[in-house]
Amino acid sequence: MSSNAALQARVDVHTPGHTYPIHIGVGLLGAPATWAGLRPGGRVVVVTNDTVAPLYAAPVMGALQASGQKVSLVALPDGEAHKDWGTLQRIFDHLLAQGADRRTVLVALGGGVVGDMTGFAAACYMRGVDFIQVPTTLLSQVDSSVGGKTGINHPLGKNMIGAFHQPLQVVCDLDALRTLPARELSAGLAEVIKYGPIADAAFLGWIEAHLAELRRADTAALVHAVRRSCEIKAEVVGQDEKESGLRAILNFGHTFGHAIEAGMGYGEWLHGEAVGCGMVLAADLSCELGLVPASFVSRLKGLIEAAGLPVKPPIWPVAQWMSLMRVDKKAQDGEIRFVVIEAVGRAAVRPVDDALVARVLRRHGATD
Amino acid sequence: MSSNAALQARVDVHTPGHTYPIHIGVGLLGAPATWAGLRPGGRVVVVTNDTVAPLYAAPVMGALQASGQKVSLVALPDGEAHKDWGTLQRIFDHLLAQGADRRTVLVALGGGVVGDMTGFAAACYMRGVDFIQVPTTLLSQVDSSVGGKTGINHPLGKNMIGAFHQPLQVVCDLDALRTLPARELSAGLAEVIKYGPIADAAFLGWIEAHLAELRRADTAALVHAVRRSCEIKAEVVGQDEKESGLRAILNFGHTFGHAIEAGMGYGEWLHGEAVGCGMVLAADLSCELGLVPASFVSRLKGLIEAAGLPVKPPIWPVAQWMSLMRVDKKAQDGEIRFVVIEAVGRAAVRPVDDALVARVLRRHGATD
Repeated sequence: MSSNAALQARVDVHTPGHTYPIHIGVGLLGAPATWAGLRPGGRVVVVTNDTVAPLYAAPVMGALQASGQKVSLVALPDGEAHKDWGTLQRIFDHLLAQGADRRTVLVALGGGVVGDMTGFAAACYMRGVDFIQVPTTLLSQVDSSVGGKTGINHPLGKNMIGAFHQPLQVVCDLDALRTLPARELSAGLAEVIKYGPIADAAFLGWIEAHLAELRRADTAALVHAVRRSCEIKAEVVGQDEKESGLRAILNFGHTFGHAIEAGMGYGEWLHGEAVGCGMVLAADLSCELGLVPASFVSRLKGLIEAAGLPVKPPIWPVAQWMSLMRVDKKAQDGEIRFVVIEAVGRAAVRPVDDALVARVLRRHGATD
Repeated sequence: MSSNAALQARVDVHTPGHTYPIHIGVGLLGAPATWAGLRPGGRVVVVTNDTVAPLYAAPVMGALQASGQKVSLVALPDGEAHKDWGTLQRIFDHLLAQGADRRTVLVALGGGVVGDMTGFAAACYMRGVDFIQVPTTLLSQVDSSVGGKTGINHPLGKNMIGAFHQPLQVVCDLDALRTLPARELSAGLAEVIKYGPIADAAFLGWIEAHLAELRRADTAALVHAVRRSCEIKAEVVGQDEKESGLRAILNFGHTFGHAIEAGMGYGEWLHGEAVGCGMVLAADLSCELGLVPASFVSRLKGLIEAAGLPVKPPIWPVAQWMSLMRVDKKAQDGEIRFVVIEAVGRAAVRPVDDALVARVLRRHGATD
């Protein structure tokens, strides 16, 4: 190994049917070695978007060809607003036009939207083909590319249509984060920050201490942040792949966050921005339940704000919030369930009385 | 048990993650006992089509309500031509409008199209909810409702988009077959006949001996035909749920059959009609390969014809056949693979030289 050795890490994800590696490092995308595990002479379809294609499609396709694969490319329009059936259909059209069969491998090259759609296309094409996640945003490296959740949005709810489909491997090339706009880097930090309150108090302290390095995309800081985030996510997903219980804690801040995204129209707020603001609300809800002190809410809010994320939610009537949150996938028989912090580093999912949720929402500006 | 005891049967399907029963009998749809295993006070969405709804929606919904379920209904347009994303979307729209959550159970009440679409909707809604198959056609009772294959069609290929998703249970009420048009009964017999050549020479003889009873929907004959078909299918699916090998033998006649369906436009030929005719071609291909004598081809063709099924394929150029068959899901790297009969009661999947396939097609009228 070269001087990059300190900048390489590997995390394994163990699910009941499948174990796969997350490779974290620099210079991975364009290295034929990254793709050496694929069946020789196989067919690979790289799915990306219009923004990522000019940056990384050429090195990835070159490395795949150099390792003996037949490669083609589909570039989708960029953005959460396109995470729908019409865009998914473009992947299926390409696969069928290319004569892709059950042994074809899809490569998701891009952020969370590309990863979710490519993974869902792989889950459904001929009832399931293999795919590889190559996340090029911080958010997708630390969250959406790991754990096998795939899907598309429905006008009435985010990620309502989807599948659990684990990738063959995840390739997190930190070089890709150099071209990431500051706003997207901040959005990714929201999901990094999340792992502190739900699972690791020491990691929360580390993030606070290294926020400046993280915001300027310092590689050494990113390796640690991505690795620790993936370790926590892998640990949780390994215990509860299909989200029958524990896994739901990864949705801290997401019940409020999804309501913000859906209510504003997908793409107005970045997912990480909505989650950042949602965590402030969820922390306050935990405080209202008497689980954590007000000082924790201030601390978390301060960190989220310092990460460049919004902490003030949109001003909506309480009834609108409730109706948006009732379609959350954690809801049961119409009862909304929230991820709450029981102590810094420990989370739980529980139903919360509507009146109490309303009180918290009003404190953050919600109207009657 | 009443005098119906002889008319009841149960077959269990064992897959790696899941074991579930197929209940075969009379008077099952409207009996609250059929639904007694559901979570008390749960939500059930019955998905059916415009043809089946007036016949069976009321008794099924009544029995579900009597057993304590909250029930709603979606009726889709009838027919293979509607087995597409647009129709599937109507199920999702209904589920979200009803506030259906992850514990909601879908009931597929209808033939293969309803079963495939409802199963796929259940596989994808919130990344997976439970469903029950209630097949009301012979074809779906003996084939499509068992084994967990779900999906929709793509303009370029049948069942190209789908998932493996096993039902909670399958309810085959033979009373439903009394209202089945003769053409659909014949189409179902094609899949019943299939089980003979691929797995059970004695069953093939039994079908020949009881064809008259089967064609007039005699209940005792149907119980045996449905039970034996489901037993064979359960045995095969139990050994190879995801079709990595053995399961493909269930597709005897289907490579030619899918080409007929796609080439004629979905819905022109019933699936069972295309499979019936496809089996004549596949038997002839097996003969051409020297595996079975010409007398077997004549025998099978005679039975298929006597079952009221077409035995003459459409007249197309060989190149059109080949191009239609190359999108088959069994194809690998552009090479078409066929299910062939090695001996009566034993099948295998193998690639076959294009020239040999062309010779068989020409014998059945294909042009150059």
